[in-house]
Amino acid sequence: MEKPFLGVAYYPEDWDEKEIDYDISMMKKAGIRCIRIAEFAWSEMEPEEGTFSFDWLHRVIDRAAEEGIKTVLGTPTATPPIWLTQKYPDIMVLNAQNVRARHGGRRNGCANHPKYLEYSMRIVEKMAQEFGDDPNVIGWQIDNEINRPSCECEYCKSAFHRYLQAKYAGIDALNRAWNTNVFSQRYTDFNQIPIPTVSWQNPHVRLEYQLFSGDTQSRFVGDQIDILKKYTKAPIGTDTMPTLAVDYESMCEKCDIMQFNHYDQPEALPTERFWFDFIRPQKEHPFWNTETSSCWNGSWRTAQSVKPYGFCRVNSWLPVALGGESNMYWLWRTHHGGHEIMHGALLYPSGRPYPIFDEVRRVADELDQCGTFLTNTRVQSQVAMHFTGRAWNMFETQCVVDDFSYQKVLYESFYRPVSDCGIRPDLIMAGKELDSYRLLISSLLPTLEEGDLAARISKWVKEGGVWIAGPMTDFRDACGARYVKAPYGMLEELTGARQAYEVPDRVGATKCQWKSGKEFVGSWWYELFESDGDELVKVSDGYPTLIGKSPLLRKKVGKGAVYLLGTVPSAEDMKQIVTMAAREAGVPMIAHEGELAIAPRVGEGIGGMVVLECAGKGGSVDLPEEMTDLITQKTYAGHVTLSPYDVLVLQKK
Amino acid sequence: MEKPFLGVAYYPEDWDEKEIDYDISMMKKAGIRCIRIAEFAWSEMEPEEGTFSFDWLHRVIDRAAEEGIKTVLGTPTATPPIWLTQKYPDIMVLNAQNVRARHGGRRNGCANHPKYLEYSMRIVEKMAQEFGDDPNVIGWQIDNEINRPSCECEYCKSAFHRYLQAKYAGIDALNRAWNTNVFSQRYTDFNQIPIPTVSWQNPHVRLEYQLFSGDTQSRFVGDQIDILKKYTKAPIGTDTMPTLAVDYESMCEKCDIMQFNHYDQPEALPTERFWFDFIRPQKEHPFWNTETSSCWNGSWRTAQSVKPYGFCRVNSWLPVALGGESNMYWLWRTHHGGHEIMHGALLYPSGRPYPIFDEVRRVADELDQCGTFLTNTRVQSQVAMHFTGRAWNMFETQCVVDDFSYQKVLYESFYRPVSDCGIRPDLIMAGKELDSYRLLISSLLPTLEEGDLAARISKWVKEGGVWIAGPMTDFRDACGARYVKAPYGMLEELTGARQAYEVPDRVGATKCQWKSGKEFVGSWWYELFESDGDELVKVSDGYPTLIGKSPLLRKKVGKGAVYLLGTVPSAEDMKQIVTMAAREAGVPMIAHEGELAIAPRVGEGIGGMVVLECAGKGGSVDLPEEMTDLITQKTYAGHVTLSPYDVLVLQKK
Amino acid sequence: MEKPFLGVAYYPEDWDEKEIDYDISMMKKAGIRCIRIAEFAWSEMEPEEGTFSFDWLHRVIDRAAEEGIKTVLGTPTATPPIWLTQKYPDIMVLNAQNVRARHGGRRNGCANHPKYLEYSMRIVEKMAQEFGDDPNVIGWQIDNEINRPSCECEYCKSAFHRYLQAKYAGIDALNRAWNTNVFSQRYTDFNQIPIPTVSWQNPHVRLEYQLFSGDTQSRFVGDQIDILKKYTKAPIGTDTMPTLAVDYESMCEKCDIMQFNHYDQPEALPTERFWFDFIRPQKEHPFWNTETSSCWNGSWRTAQSVKPYGFCRVNSWLPVALGGESNMYWLWRTHHGGHEIMHGALLYPSGRPYPIFDEVRRVADELDQCGTFLTNTRVQSQVAMHFTGRAWNMFETQCVVDDFSYQKVLYESFYRPVSDCGIRPDLIMAGKELDSYRLLISSLLPTLEEGDLAARISKWVKEGGVWIAGPMTDFRDACGARYVKAPYGMLEELTGARQAYEVPDRVGATKCQWKSGKEFVGSWWYELFESDGDELVKVSDGYPTLIGKSPLLRKKVGKGAVYLLGTVPSAEDMKQIVTMAAREAGVPMIAHEGELAIAPRVGEGIGGMVVLECAGKGGSVDLPEEMTDLITQKTYAGHVTLSPYDVLVLQKK
Repeated sequence: MEKPFLGVAYYPEDWDEKEIDYDISMMKKAGIRCIRIAEFAWSEMEPEEGTFSFDWLHRVIDRAAEEGIKTVLGTPTATPPIWLTQKYPDIMVLNAQNVRARHGGRRNGCANHPKYLEYSMRIVEKMAQEFGDDPNVIGWQIDNEINRPSCECEYCKSAFHRYLQAKYAGIDALNRAWNTNVFSQRYTDFNQIPIPTVSWQNPHVRLEYQLFSGDTQSRFVGDQIDILKKYTKAPIGTDTMPTLAVDYESMCEKCDIMQFNHYDQPEALPTERFWFDFIRPQKEHPFWNTETSSCWNGSWRTAQSVKPYGFCRVNSWLPVALGGESNMYWLWRTHHGGHEIMHGALLYPSGRPYPIFDEVRRVADELDQCGTFLTNTRVQSQVAMHFTGRAWNMFETQCVVDDFSYQKVLYESFYRPVSDCGIRPDLIMAGKELDSYRLLISSLLPTLEEGDLAARISKWVKEGGVWIAGPMTDFRDACGARYVKAPYGMLEELTGARQAYEVPDRVGATKCQWKSGKEFVGSWWYELFESDGDELVKVSDGYPTLIGKSPLLRKKVGKGAVYLLGTVPSAEDMKQIVTMAAREAGVPMIAHEGELAIAPRVGEGIGGMVVLECAGKGGSVDLPEEMTDLITQKTYAGHVTLSPYDVLVLQKK
Repeated sequence: MEKPFLGVAYYPEDWDEKEIDYDISMMKKAGIRCIRIAEFAWSEMEPEEGTFSFDWLHRVIDRAAEEGIKTVLGTPTATPPIWLTQKYPDIMVLNAQNVRARHGGRRNGCANHPKYLEYSMRIVEKMAQEFGDDPNVIGWQIDNEINRPSCECEYCKSAFHRYLQAKYAGIDALNRAWNTNVFSQRYTDFNQIPIPTVSWQNPHVRLEYQLFSGDTQSRFVGDQIDILKKYTKAPIGTDTMPTLAVDYESMCEKCDIMQFNHYDQPEALPTERFWFDFIRPQKEHPFWNTETSSCWNGSWRTAQSVKPYGFCRVNSWLPVALGGESNMYWLWRTHHGGHEIMHGALLYPSGRPYPIFDEVRRVADELDQCGTFLTNTRVQSQVAMHFTGRAWNMFETQCVVDDFSYQKVLYESFYRPVSDCGIRPDLIMAGKELDSYRLLISSLLPTLEEGDLAARISKWVKEGGVWIAGPMTDFRDACGARYVKAPYGMLEELTGARQAYEVPDRVGATKCQWKSGKEFVGSWWYELFESDGDELVKVSDGYPTLIGKSPLLRKKVGKGAVYLLGTVPSAEDMKQIVTMAAREAGVPMIAHEGELAIAPRVGEGIGGMVVLECAGKGGSVDLPEEMTDLITQKTYAGHVTLSPYDVLVLQKK
Repeated sequence: MEKPFLGVAYYPEDWDEKEIDYDISMMKKAGIRCIRIAEFAWSEMEPEEGTFSFDWLHRVIDRAAEEGIKTVLGTPTATPPIWLTQKYPDIMVLNAQNVRARHGGRRNGCANHPKYLEYSMRIVEKMAQEFGDDPNVIGWQIDNEINRPSCECEYCKSAFHRYLQAKYAGIDALNRAWNTNVFSQRYTDFNQIPIPTVSWQNPHVRLEYQLFSGDTQSRFVGDQIDILKKYTKAPIGTDTMPTLAVDYESMCEKCDIMQFNHYDQPEALPTERFWFDFIRPQKEHPFWNTETSSCWNGSWRTAQSVKPYGFCRVNSWLPVALGGESNMYWLWRTHHGGHEIMHGALLYPSGRPYPIFDEVRRVADELDQCGTFLTNTRVQSQVAMHFTGRAWNMFETQCVVDDFSYQKVLYESFYRPVSDCGIRPDLIMAGKELDSYRLLISSLLPTLEEGDLAARISKWVKEGGVWIAGPMTDFRDACGARYVKAPYGMLEELTGARQAYEVPDRVGATKCQWKSGKEFVGSWWYELFESDGDELVKVSDGYPTLIGKSPLLRKKVGKGAVYLLGTVPSAEDMKQIVTMAAREAGVPMIAHEGELAIAPRVGEGIGGMVVLECAGKGGSVDLPEEMTDLITQKTYAGHVTLSPYDVLVLQKK
């Protein structure tokens, strides 16, 4: 749409026509410009097998359009109707205890079951035929919050075996890759390979099973998109959750637009910067924040606590500031019965407004005020940081050191120090081109064996890129095994460095110092390099054999440089590393205090930045030049103080 | 019996005849006047299918009677014998993981299985024929600690579908009531409805399944009573546990007497006041505390810790003080083998007495001393408080706010402040008549749609009753859904108040003040009313939209008044509310300090009160007039101090 | 072998021949003298059913022998190959949820399944035929870390019924022994008895099922040994873990040598003294510590943290000091793929050495220096302490008092005070002869009904032995039931004492004093005796009935004495009891401070002691005479200070 807009999830199937009229009139009052509907309404659209009913949906779309409200349509495949689950009970996912999911929940159908697929694709095609060219339908959403259910039905088993057969050059290759000699595990046929249970299973079969399960979902999404694209030109996406259990790169391959749902508690709002920095670079089309709560979250049966005043505004602004086009609330009007009847919304079941109603209207007005500036500028970044589905699944299936959490450590120890340096990074997946970046950070990226990633990085560094590599990077092959010839796939070869030791250390047995003698604090894990003059940090105390070895080298490579990092540094030390590397790469940094989201925006002949205070604690930013806040029309320069949850939309003079 | 008495659970099937003779002689020494036997002895009474053996039981009953000891007989249906579980393995309950219960535990039979029912009713009838007119059998107990097992066998499924069919006017009515449009859940036939698994299931199907499971048990109890009543005039009950999982109103409908088991740790003894205040008003016949431990609890295989000295005495007195007729220990003599061989008792397996033996004798003597007074007086109350099975099950299936616990909050935030005001309330279920009460407290009573409750309350208020209503009251319909026309079923209509907002608040975001400006502390949840001059409390800080709204109104209704309460108040604030309402209703309050059980007792031309110190910490009470302690014959007046675990049985002069 | 030696677990099936050559050359560098191989290599040795391949294994053994490195061979029955698990899927253990184990883990075969047994015994016999007379094979290991899987397959059920039938003189005897009258559990046929589920099952059926499951494993081990012994004279064992779930007495009955695996964290190293004191007395042949980690443990998929410097050395010395012949590391070279790829070792997958490599070499050299002294002396003890499989399983199936842990309390409250008194005890099982001991401690030994144990103890005491008996000793019969005639089987009869009360007390309600008036601190549990002049300690406060009763009597019995102990004493009080009893028995004690392992060693005309500091905190020992440290050649006398993780191998002058 023309300007960033607010939307809501709406369930007209819940309500009488009279209430629908009332709801739409109230949406207009709230400044809502889009409804997201139909995502769970399969039984309304196909009440009996082969009988389709879309009139009610047309009426809602048309009625909304009369008030200037557009529609995003969801495909309803997450909730198969009773005639389907009753006719084919075995479409329901089967868990490891041999118990099937039951009717009445969601995402309970097995995406490897031919009948579930057949009926799913048919309802999608019918919807596409019906609404594909409706000008008021401005987008599509596939299914809902795709995750990776662990189904163990016969269809999944066969599909898993076919997946492995297609991936490995014969069963011997698989045995070698997985080192199945351990525990006499060796297979003689693909169909012998079990779906792995929780513990004491080969980590490679666990990894492959997770990747396979993710691929199943990606294919399920992709197949729906193929159908939709025959009938519509509106952008298609699937509303994702803050998880990489299903690899976004493959799941969203055919998508036009990224869609994202989040329900963070106030204390976790700063982490959403991470996720939006991850969602933004995936597609050209600005993303949509498809779901967030207005004033409190609900579980499937209870309410959590009300969020502090001010949160709704900054939470609504955050996706837009960081490159999105829309913020949509879940939901417009709380269900009067069924699941989630305590979830926060904009109207109570009684139709009365929530206390947050006016605040939403305020955000709508602000977006309108700032819309031209936002539409004509984009967030840009010169720094990339890897965050991949392969890494996510590898750490899930072998977390390297007890209790190590990939996303948590990546956020706390790598992303946040970068952000605290005043850098807006792109979080990228393995396939992303590197040309537009000056600084690349690949920490906790166990394998570089994804496509030609290793070669592309080498080339990019040699042509002048600055690369922070490690820890826990390049130390596994594609299926999660360790290398035999050397500790790394390519790092030693590229840099000429030599690793002496790898040591897990959660107790602080290993002490280090910067060259200057200042303490350097590592944690979790050490890859220690032979010292050869390029070391920035050395071990100063601990095992005698480790002393003098280095967890941080800087190596010149071609026109570029590699910062070889062997441990998880303290935030302070990581900021120092980032500062050195950013300076070397010529990347600007914006000085500030507090947990801010600072989004520099550039367009043709126009520029500025959006600055949000995310933690409810206040902060400050040092502006590089004079700018005007488009909300208050006040002019700012130099050191600017932000109050809790403050929103500044600053346009350069 | 003539006076309140002590009893014991006894398992003669454990022991040789010689030991039984010894046991009975020792019971007499301990002052025990009743044995509770046979509750698990099915395999003794029917060692083979259709072969009955009751002589051994007659001998025990007769032998006890010779020493003046009466008998309560339990029906043994909780423990089906091996010939039955082997012949019909599918009578064993089947859990959600498709695993059947095994022989050797208890309450493992499915009360919807026709064969289990057939054999259960036959043994009950045989016992009734054999002992129904034995004058030494002074009561009957049905089964043991009836709970709500979650069985998923085919018989349960069919019965559940029949239950729903009988309750709803067709499948469309059910779909509407449950709002099954959410998640395409809509059913076309009752037999499609699944037994709900733990999460992401429609809360209404979960509620109905729990109510159905409870009804199954109620019917099981009722069927046994129907049989017994053909043969006996002795009072019949079923020994309940501190839970409302099975609705007491329906389970005990046909009972003559309430029976209650409790095993609280010392720190929880004060909560038993709550349970006895709940048990007392259910039946005319004074209740029996059928089980409690003498000096320590055991689990099925271990001992817990010894309880402090003094506890046994006050724990034995408490049920009698609060309106019961008997306290019975579990058990007389610890099993020498099998389950629970570490449970506290009065004799060790070796026949030697426990350290508590003499203390029990002391209580027996005291009951004897005070017996006439206790028998000729009854506990009376002018205050009622709702505590219902429907509410229990509703909060279990949708607890409204995360972690909210119905019984815990009702006890801590509502019952205890009432008790601390020196009021002895009756805790009543939905069907109880209100005429005899002056003050009614209906907090956490989600639905008033139980019979004609709403109409009866309205009438009672209009005729002069004072009603404290809310929070979380009248805000759900009978199946747990929310109202669409207004937030309440009848509260707004009755009082003329209008609710502005509902807000969950566990973080203290919302601040309130009494009219006087004094702080008022709410928690968990706010229903906030438009202020119209009747407000006692207002929001003073928080969301701008909430400020000035009121969580506590006082509305005159007819000759009565409604205190409309929208939040869970602090104990201090609840005491203030209760004090205001009690004064308005003309209900007297007895000033005291400490966690006492104060039981005013009235009879014809006789009166007084029993005062117990329950927390082991001491306390005091201000007597309204001079009274004599029947144990020590000391006379008390005015401010009286109690030592830890003190017992005063005070008769007015 | 001639002198104590270091060994490693090695998995040649992981590696190319070239790497194997490299590995063996590096082993020699590290001072390794033994490899432990083949334990999981079934699929290498029998790649197809009936096709055997041993050449590769011969080559490894021969290649190692060339470098002077001997071999221990493991039988591979813990990891059945795919052709077997595929042909007979029901050999996989079946859990209580009816879910079978899957291929790819270990110890997943059911040792009651005839086909699993048939194929297991065949591969063992083939190995025996192939390697039984190989002079370089210096020992055998049966399976790996035998535990007690809870299998519920039909074979296990039948075997359990046969086991019970063989043990009890008919079903009536079983009913009496288990008191199945409780809960109408009574059986009429052995085949009705269920495998017990977790809770509310008769503790005796639970105990028997655990004993049966242990016996299944013992028979599995014994059957393998019978086969091996037809072909080899090398010592055979099975590598056990720190658990008595499977009774060592029966499992190791046919073994020649004890083998032991442990992976303790640094803070738990002192507890290994307990386990080595337990392993040592079982067999004439000095035991082998078959597994421990070099510098950090791994789980099946992660690393734990690096251990402190110095730990490896003392951890390697500990088994040798306490009577063992070998310390073997798990593993030589970390797997490059498959399970446990983060486990500590001596070489990384890349072949590079770990930081601990040189430290291991140092220990090898030290063992060499001290070898003659160690080989010519043995650890001797005059004190025995019971620690039995029956007790372990009894406390597991009925832990007496909530949360009571047999091994933890035995270690903390009984073993450690003994050790702190400077006594090196033998931990013995029920069958062990007592003649060589002067002081016997039988605490937490619920039943004496194991063989003729009660009679042997009586005789031994009457002939002059000093016995500390209790608490929780002799208070259960063989199947875990309580005695009816008296609280004990024989204690009252033997000593003339009379127990008054048994009381669980976790809250400190019971206070005691030594005769001197000094406070005595008990815990958990009290058996209190009538005071008759022999009491050392009396109850001074608590329940009135308990005051004056005694938890500690000293009774003269024949030429000996019994210290009748009724509670778990504080460490300080236990040391006082041990000191009194040791003096009475004439047992010497070595004064020291800190958590040391002090191992007096005696040989023909030679003697001394090894002293290790186990806690990393330092300590001291008072030497009874002048001695020379064989590592440093320094001479010590009198008060000697040890630094953290110090090792002194002291030979008398």
